[in-house]
Amino acid sequence: MATLFKDVYILDGERERAQLGHLLVSKGRIQSIFEAAAAPPQADKVVDGGGHTAVLPGFVNAHTHAAMVLLRGLGEEAPLMDWLQKKIWPAEAKLTPDHIYWGTTSAILEMLATGTTCFADMYFEMEGVARAALGAGIRAALCRGIVSGPPVDGVSKIDRSIEENLGLFDRWHGREGLLTVQLGPHAPYTVPFADMRRIVEIAKGRGIGLHFHFLETEWEFGYIRDELKMTPETYLRETGLADAPGVVLAHGVWMDPTWADSLDLSRLTIAHNPCSNMKLGSGVMPLDTWLDKNVGLALGTDGASSNNRLDMWGEMRSAALLHKGVTRSPAGAPALDVLRMATFEGARAFGFANKGLIREGWVADLVLVDLDQPHYIGADEDNLVSFIVYAGTSADIRGTMINGKWLYKDGIYSGLDKDEILHKTREARKAIME
Amino acid sequence: MATLFKDVYILDGERERAQLGHLLVSKGRIQSIFEAAAAPPQADKVVDGGGHTAVLPGFVNAHTHAAMVLLRGLGEEAPLMDWLQKKIWPAEAKLTPDHIYWGTTSAILEMLATGTTCFADMYFEMEGVARAALGAGIRAALCRGIVSGPPVDGVSKIDRSIEENLGLFDRWHGREGLLTVQLGPHAPYTVPFADMRRIVEIAKGRGIGLHFHFLETEWEFGYIRDELKMTPETYLRETGLADAPGVVLAHGVWMDPTWADSLDLSRLTIAHNPCSNMKLGSGVMPLDTWLDKNVGLALGTDGASSNNRLDMWGEMRSAALLHKGVTRSPAGAPALDVLRMATFEGARAFGFANKGLIREGWVADLVLVDLDQPHYIGADEDNLVSFIVYAGTSADIRGTMINGKWLYKDGIYSGLDKDEILHKTREARKAIME
Repeated sequence: MATLFKDVYILDGERERAQLGHLLVSKGRIQSIFEAAAAPPQADKVVDGGGHTAVLPGFVNAHTHAAMVLLRGLGEEAPLMDWLQKKIWPAEAKLTPDHIYWGTTSAILEMLATGTTCFADMYFEMEGVARAALGAGIRAALCRGIVSGPPVDGVSKIDRSIEENLGLFDRWHGREGLLTVQLGPHAPYTVPFADMRRIVEIAKGRGIGLHFHFLETEWEFGYIRDELKMTPETYLRETGLADAPGVVLAHGVWMDPTWADSLDLSRLTIAHNPCSNMKLGSGVMPLDTWLDKNVGLALGTDGASSNNRLDMWGEMRSAALLHKGVTRSPAGAPALDVLRMATFEGARAFGFANKGLIREGWVADLVLVDLDQPHYIGADEDNLVSFIVYAGTSADIRGTMINGKWLYKDGIYSGLDKDEILHKTREARKAIME
Repeated sequence: MATLFKDVYILDGERERAQLGHLLVSKGRIQSIFEAAAAPPQADKVVDGGGHTAVLPGFVNAHTHAAMVLLRGLGEEAPLMDWLQKKIWPAEAKLTPDHIYWGTTSAILEMLATGTTCFADMYFEMEGVARAALGAGIRAALCRGIVSGPPVDGVSKIDRSIEENLGLFDRWHGREGLLTVQLGPHAPYTVPFADMRRIVEIAKGRGIGLHFHFLETEWEFGYIRDELKMTPETYLRETGLADAPGVVLAHGVWMDPTWADSLDLSRLTIAHNPCSNMKLGSGVMPLDTWLDKNVGLALGTDGASSNNRLDMWGEMRSAALLHKGVTRSPAGAPALDVLRMATFEGARAFGFANKGLIREGWVADLVLVDLDQPHYIGADEDNLVSFIVYAGTSADIRGTMINGKWLYKDGIYSGLDKDEILHKTREARKAIME
């Protein structure tokens, strides 16, 4: 089935200039792009943009814990370690596989309505996350958060979670072109150094990507120095993380961009989570300095319990504004760089080929935006990127398409029963709070 | 006519805890509030909240230039002085009274849809702004931006703009309880010192409030030191701004909270504009330190050409997150403080009595919020403030009521022709860009 987007602004995600024209989607792909003057081709379905509609690449949330929507609002305004140890971890101990399935599905409702077509998730009981994503038809990059803990039946928690993560890979990696699976060693302070090395070795040996937390807080910087007796650069080098392929590092707030001058970080992508880092008081990572280095940079929301939204459009705007304010430079975090971080860079980092830009032949993961609103007056081909990032909001989204299929259109989800999902998620929340 | 809000969460704007109950609006006032267990009274109209709807005080945008929606997107990513001198001032020179009327009306569409029931506006050709606000039925605090410039017919620009501002006061102050008028000396660098003193004298003599820009940029700090040869505290004291009643100072990014220890600032309100200050690279004002001082603190968006939104809900969230990030304290800028800044504090500062909180007998300027959405799962009476500030968005608004009358409900404006306004505003934009 073919869908024609007629008379729309096409913001491809790599060029500063948008193009007014037509876009034909067929068999899940962006088949062709036509200039406005060209006669648009025939198609089964036509979305008539009327010259006041934009099409963007779908957003890729490069770091989240979707099921943490169940824990939203717990431990508000508490420091990260208190928040984790006193509120989050005790609540997580009560989560069942069923809770995680429904929590993730509820998070998918939020993500689809705000234009996310792909999310990278680290959590536990990941089978439920995989089922939820595949069932909804949303793209996802999954890993089991590997952490140390007491042994059960003589098997260490690390070994059990590695086994679970590898099982997840074997069962779900590549499924329907929607899922990829990474190994997810949680963080330097939850995975012993020798185990981190071993996990990286396994990943390299089997050609699996990696997704982990690194230097989210200044405390963690001190942990690596005082407990592991090394610098963070040495840690990245000695564990093999720096030269493993397909590595996504979440946060990196306390990483120093000058490391990139002596250590090759070109294979690595930093998933920047500005709202979560602000909310937990973790600090502000020096995005503009990183933008000049040879390293991948993507954007994520982190879990809803520390953001507290799963809205990549809002995250883009927050990133673009925050770094201008902190560096006191209005040229900081340019709109196009931030848009690219929120789309293509995340897709590439998690091994999704031909996704995250609007290009002929690439996969049709798209967002449809209504520009016929007061805050878009004055938007044109030359300035649409700025209008989208600075003046727009996810409330302007009229549709979210994945693989050429509408999963969300005009407020309606296709294939997801919103009422049932809300009901089940509320029940899960109640059970956790008891 | 009476409107009953049945089974709603009432977030009154001053208490941490929301109340589940009923709220009766009659003759433009909040007539009474009932506990959930009480039988709700009869009313002509009933809004059945079904236990998944919230009522908040309307937002008060304490600093904007509404008609600048016409200049949105000009000079993106340029420093403040370049942006003003090369882009904004030349474009403003082309604005006609008609442009300003339509631009303001278009801004009112945006503000009503995002829950703003009152805005404080400094611009020129303010008759059009007053007509637009009164025509729409939105509350507004108006001032003519008083600036120096070449004389016309022997009358200095300062004197002409003071005359215009006083004329505005005489014609519009107090009109229908919707409008107040202040004097608007633009800033220390656009109004000579002697004139600033004179304007403050006039304001004190006639009992008129004042609204001006102060220390938005570090450059302005240097200007006061080098050109005026004084400290900013001396400036505030010597001009009389510090002890005039009803003074609202926009920005204050470069003010030092320790000044409050030696100078009585208790009559003054600082209108904080976090997004505009970030976007222009002006810096981040130390909100948390100010929260401990005896000074008024309100919240504004500034004009849409430097924000680029007029969304007070988004501004609240940005304020709450930004200051946590910059101070590295998750306890920074607490949700309830920020909500109060976005509502009551702005109303009070601009001389609106009995507005900005939900209290029996107070004016019914209200926002209706749909909580029946995935991102509110887990919200209850104890945590609703946090859910609203951190997880919510203006897209959740289902209605905006001023004086007990719906100006915006379920996407429809009452008394404003959206299509005509968009058309006229687009024409104005085109005329300016030619």
